Amino acid sequence: MVQIPNTSASAPPAQRSVPTSADVARLAGVSRATVSYVLNNTSAVRISEPTRRRVHEAAEELGYVPHAAARSLRAGHSRMVLMPAPAIPVGPLHGQFLNELQWALSRLDYTVVQHGALGLHGDDAARAWAELRPVAVLVPGQGLGPQGVAVLKRSGARAVVTLGPTGVEGAHALLMDHATVGREAARHLHARGRRRIGVVVPEESGLEAYSTPRLDGVRQALRGTDAVVTELPLGYTEEAAARLAARWRGLGLDAVFAYNDEYAMLLMRALQDEGVRIPEDTAVIGADDLMLGRLLRPRLSTVHIELPSGRELAELVDRAVRDPGAAPERHEVLGATVVHRDSS
Amino acid sequence: MVQIPNTSASAPPAQRSVPTSADVARLAGVSRATVSYVLNNTSAVRISEPTRRRVHEAAEELGYVPHAAARSLRAGHSRMVLMPAPAIPVGPLHGQFLNELQWALSRLDYTVVQHGALGLHGDDAARAWAELRPVAVLVPGQGLGPQGVAVLKRSGARAVVTLGPTGVEGAHALLMDHATVGREAARHLHARGRRRIGVVVPEESGLEAYSTPRLDGVRQALRGTDAVVTELPLGYTEEAAARLAARWRGLGLDAVFAYNDEYAMLLMRALQDEGVRIPEDTAVIGADDLMLGRLLRPRLSTVHIELPSGRELAELVDRAVRDPGAAPERHEVLGATVVHRDSS
Repeated sequence: MVQIPNTSASAPPAQRSVPTSADVARLAGVSRATVSYVLNNTSAVRISEPTRRRVHEAAEELGYVPHAAARSLRAGHSRMVLMPAPAIPVGPLHGQFLNELQWALSRLDYTVVQHGALGLHGDDAARAWAELRPVAVLVPGQGLGPQGVAVLKRSGARAVVTLGPTGVEGAHALLMDHATVGREAARHLHARGRRRIGVVVPEESGLEAYSTPRLDGVRQALRGTDAVVTELPLGYTEEAAARLAARWRGLGLDAVFAYNDEYAMLLMRALQDEGVRIPEDTAVIGADDLMLGRLLRPRLSTVHIELPSGRELAELVDRAVRDPGAAPERHEVLGATVVHRDSS
Repeated sequence: MVQIPNTSASAPPAQRSVPTSADVARLAGVSRATVSYVLNNTSAVRISEPTRRRVHEAAEELGYVPHAAARSLRAGHSRMVLMPAPAIPVGPLHGQFLNELQWALSRLDYTVVQHGALGLHGDDAARAWAELRPVAVLVPGQGLGPQGVAVLKRSGARAVVTLGPTGVEGAHALLMDHATVGREAARHLHARGRRRIGVVVPEESGLEAYSTPRLDGVRQALRGTDAVVTELPLGYTEEAAARLAARWRGLGLDAVFAYNDEYAMLLMRALQDEGVRIPEDTAVIGADDLMLGRLLRPRLSTVHIELPSGRELAELVDRAVRDPGAAPERHEVLGATVVHRDSS
């Protein structure tokens, strides 16, 4: 770990005066109301071009910027869309989706802030978010209850949208059912003639929200067939993968759905090092369609996951903000398609 | 792309009344000041336990949460630490650092918000951040100028900390000089007897902030030696890697520093498919020390990058907030060590 030495001197805090709109008004020789109209681009009031210019110049000279909090107090709400920052590392797919969403919302004149809510859960988290008086809240994952939705709405949020496996009363829901990922993987393996199917369940905490429905999806797809499902807990280390591979022949499996491509790559390498032939002895399939899966030999089969576009989600948020009385919308938004390569 | 249908009805917006502290005061039978003292945990004023309980119960019943904006207006500043959200996808290393940092700051009673500043640059971005009146701002990457720092400070930010290759006047700087990554890679390859060294420069936009100093570091380390450096632009696709590999023998290189592990894995596979032996014909080294690099054969050599701990950075922020008059601190915080495996 790189150390940061503590070199702080104990000087008294510097006195700085934060410029206010009153200072701008004084310098520009106009009223505070005029400053507010000009800097907030209010179209309802006509103000001459020279006056506008004078206000902008005075604001520039003083280094004044409007106070979003004051503006939101006056307006009763903000243009802030709040998203809890994900507590677990997000993959490249999700990262791209977030970027796209932020871009689309900023085009609609919303400011997106991600709230670091580590250590807060459920309705406590909702209260912390409500303190910022966002106009809309996008909640990934699970954990927010109907109470939390009510707290957010009472504090002025016009739209609450959840992105996760299940919806919550009072909120719009973009349903992302990861069971469909497991179902598609299992159908593919079954169609390829495999019957003794292992399912990797990561031991790393925080992944249950994905791993549990993926495993459930495998079970659903194989219900009523002659296939048997075996749960395989696995930590994301070479050592853990080697231990699992060492007892592989005893497990009698002819296929494995390895949770995602990273676990699949890890396990496939360990199996190959044990002399297990892929796909002849064991078929392997991952999920996420990472580029790196194509670089292994055999090339890794995978489940490609589709998310809605950030633009569409931004439009849903904007609709909901404009029409807070509308009935909550619910949409299934997770698509899953098998990409068959050489490992299965 | 999964489609979200537009099912919005055109119902009029529902009228909802947002409960205020005045409502809480009325229900609890106390003054608004008392409500404020109780809910903000002000220790300066003594309030009896039964009164506290009455206020909390009334707040609960009404679903009232304090307004962070109002509180920050009264206090003149907030406990909000603002971080611009990175515009490019962050790797797992950086993601873990962010999580750790958010956790450490929340332990010190700060609220961390990430501001999506896509499309805003430099001092314009600083103005947008200043509108939220954060008490501290952490700015990754480059782009913020001394003007922007001044805007933030005038709007009440007590600490501005940059994380990037260079510092900015008036701000604390955690210097992350990626040249050191290139230097270490080049020294390693030179010590292994390699003299005709290629350096991959990703064609994807947004990565220049890392790729330029890494290339510069290679040149610095090899200056005054008999080694020759060749710049290799490369897009992150199998096709681009195959094209580069097809003309590899004509380039006459005996080593390549491939920007990071992902580009290294991509290029190494393409070179192997062309019959180039790794490391006999060409040594390959990446950077980031990804787990997946250990799964390839030969195992990928890499540069392991060390960041400061989130806890230490949180403590620097807290020191700076408590002592805004102190001279800006500057710390070199990027460590780089070669992990020698089989590809070099």
